[in-house]
Amino acid sequence: MMGERSEVNEGLGEILRQACRLMAKSGYHGTSMRDIAQETGRSLSGLYHYFRGKQDIIFLINYHGFNALNEMVRKMNGTFEQPREKLYAFVYCHTQYFTDHLDEMRVMTWGTQELPVDGADTIQKLKDRYTGAAQVIVEAVYRESFGRDLDERRLSRETFILFGMLNWIFGWYSPARYGGAEELVGDIYRTFLHGLAGCDGDDDHINRMATRVAKWFADHRASSMW
Amino acid sequence: MMGERSEVNEGLGEILRQACRLMAKSGYHGTSMRDIAQETGRSLSGLYHYFRGKQDIIFLINYHGFNALNEMVRKMNGTFEQPREKLYAFVYCHTQYFTDHLDEMRVMTWGTQELPVDGADTIQKLKDRYTGAAQVIVEAVYRESFGRDLDERRLSRETFILFGMLNWIFGWYSPARYGGAEELVGDIYRTFLHGLAGCDGDDDHINRMATRVAKWFADHRASSMW
Repeated sequence: MMGERSEVNEGLGEILRQACRLMAKSGYHGTSMRDIAQETGRSLSGLYHYFRGKQDIIFLINYHGFNALNEMVRKMNGTFEQPREKLYAFVYCHTQYFTDHLDEMRVMTWGTQELPVDGADTIQKLKDRYTGAAQVIVEAVYRESFGRDLDERRLSRETFILFGMLNWIFGWYSPARYGGAEELVGDIYRTFLHGLAGCDGDDDHINRMATRVAKWFADHRASSMW
Repeated sequence: MMGERSEVNEGLGEILRQACRLMAKSGYHGTSMRDIAQETGRSLSGLYHYFRGKQDIIFLINYHGFNALNEMVRKMNGTFEQPREKLYAFVYCHTQYFTDHLDEMRVMTWGTQELPVDGADTIQKLKDRYTGAAQVIVEAVYRESFGRDLDERRLSRETFILFGMLNWIFGWYSPARYGGAEELVGDIYRTFLHGLAGCDGDDDHINRMATRVAKWFADHRASSMW
């Protein structure tokens, strides 16, 4: 019985991987259950033995993916103590998972709009837990650096800015062209924490630029095709 | 004649906007020419008067979008001289364009895989010009800060990290929830240039963390489901 169950699970995992590869390439709407049956070498009825339809496949890809990410963060949080170490480890884990599971991450970035309400809700909770874990780390790093808390809205924005640096990877990164994952992790950690220029965060200077650029933009937008 | 031509162009622009909204919502493969005809209140044959098919629509959305971005950067480069001002203005322009054209940006992030070779090539050149303009700014900011050039691969990575911070916006940003575009621009500029922690970029500390985390990850990956 154990052997049989394990075989079923391995079969499921393999189908999910292949379905995910196909969907990452052709999009959700561009992939039919028939395409997936053909890709996985199954009959259509065999495929319906595992899934009620494409929604189930999208759900399972998201469910396994965000559970794996949350589990990784849980173990990481149990190992590293310093806020900056946690930040580095978070960037490292996310990037490693990403570069190991490019198709899954592509599908996971689509969001949950194709899922029924209860499925979307389950995935959203897993996502919120993951985002929340990152936010706790960003908050701790800021508090350690400045001895005070970040304003709540800015904390959210900075956390999403970090996810932007991380998740955009799928659009451009290849190790052959841009160097190994470790270099990428180092750049993202360093840039998020210390910036490209390292030091010299002059708020007056930023505020002066902000005023000048906003005025220029407003003057030009009116008279151009933007 | 001028009036007639202008009317045709306005009609085209309006169809593109509506088609873009539909595609951003349902995906490329989830949107048919028939759906677009229905959405825009045109006959299918009327629609084929403007476009040979969906590929033409995707091409035009990308073509207009990247031309607008390049034109914005050209004007910006003619106005601002200091590297940091250019960086701020680039972040500002991109974010403004983005928040004004959310549907277009979503479609533009899909890439050009649906386009025929010559169309994809035209769009890729416009994209490369835009990426190149950003890279020149990142390079100049680094040179101004450190008096030397960035290693070429790191320059590419940092430029894509900046685009990640910018382009991920579509997945999370709403002004009501996270504050106005100006605050977002300030955060992205500040974080990219100076980092969350402002100062204190200790490379030895980063290298020690890198070694420790990589070892922990390798130990755990072998024995877990990640």
